[in-house]
Amino acid sequence: MQAKGHLGQLIHALRCLPGVGPKSAQRMAFHLLLRNREGAKALAQSLLAAVEHIGYCEQCRGLSEEPLCSLCASANRDHGQLCVVEMPTDVYAIDQAGCFRGVFFVLNGRLSPLDGIGPAELGMDLLEQRLAAGEVKEVVLATNTTVEGEATAHYIGEMAQRYGVRTTRIAYGVPLGGELEYIDGATLSLAFNGRRDF
Amino acid sequence: MQAKGHLGQLIHALRCLPGVGPKSAQRMAFHLLLRNREGAKALAQSLLAAVEHIGYCEQCRGLSEEPLCSLCASANRDHGQLCVVEMPTDVYAIDQAGCFRGVFFVLNGRLSPLDGIGPAELGMDLLEQRLAAGEVKEVVLATNTTVEGEATAHYIGEMAQRYGVRTTRIAYGVPLGGELEYIDGATLSLAFNGRRDF
Ligand SMILES: [Zn+2]
Ligand SMILES: [Zn+2]
Repeated sequence: MQAKGHLGQLIHALRCLPGVGPKSAQRMAFHLLLRNREGAKALAQSLLAAVEHIGYCEQCRGLSEEPLCSLCASANRDHGQLCVVEMPTDVYAIDQAGCFRGVFFVLNGRLSPLDGIGPAELGMDLLEQRLAAGEVKEVVLATNTTVEGEATAHYIGEMAQRYGVRTTRIAYGVPLGGELEYIDGATLSLAFNGRRDF
Repeated sequence: MQAKGHLGQLIHALRCLPGVGPKSAQRMAFHLLLRNREGAKALAQSLLAAVEHIGYCEQCRGLSEEPLCSLCASANRDHGQLCVVEMPTDVYAIDQAGCFRGVFFVLNGRLSPLDGIGPAELGMDLLEQRLAAGEVKEVVLATNTTVEGEATAHYIGEMAQRYGVRTTRIAYGVPLGGELEYIDGATLSLAFNGRRDF
């Protein structure tokens, strides 16, 4: 007997969550139905509200409920320093480390030609407009230290050079091959303080 | 910067899922928003539909969209053999193993006085009515082989004896301390075939 009907659909739908296979989806479905129906309803409402209200900041491509996110709109940040990251989670990690008071640009990915992810998918045109506008005095490249992250950093470094903008790369305090999101705040701070011209 | 607003709410709501801590909740939220908004909407609808439509079978206490579940309603099952299990997932596991053609009674838990789970919470009154009605010729105790599962089995065994119903316990092919849900079908079949009077 396989789970059918609404139960089968729920188990299937839970598999859209990263890291959730058939067995955990089944456990989650039974847990919610047997132990936490209120939590299931609240989760459904949160999913719908998030999908409806959360879009992208038109300036930095980070997730935002407003056209301009709170960081881009803030007068307390140094808008002359622009940190380029792969993922919105990287913004949170760097901001929590407290080592950077500038603003961000979120690629929402990295150059990966084999996956069909090129400059257009990463909003490079928007980044180029930003550099052309002249306010940015330093681009801090904080893409991951993976092969694809490095290639992405080089692409942006060359673009910044064309506009005469100083470009730095965060120091290799970040372990090679590491994903920024998993690095602790102290290491991130070291990496920021040790950044060098790129 | 902590995630606030709808994003923060979504991350919080995802933690109602078993095994999901703050870090995975954050990853899930970003994954859905950045990569799979359709999946997020589908998951929300599935959660609401499941909570609305899935209740409990009034005969076996398993999850069911109808007053009587498909197993209890089936004329192809031997209604004289009643297998008592802790969780609805156990029903699926045993049925998939193909080793039992009777029907089930689902406790949705196990006796655990310290957690306030006594006979009433496990539907023992409903089980007793079932035994009193006389149709059941054999009770197969398939609670987990944990201390609490054994205590629960003994409680039911004594109840069945009062009604003169033969009671068997699945064989210790199931490893001691093991959770039924994780046992493969072949082991479950052995355990069923080796069941003995209790
Ligand atoms: Zn922004
Ligand atoms: Zn039933």
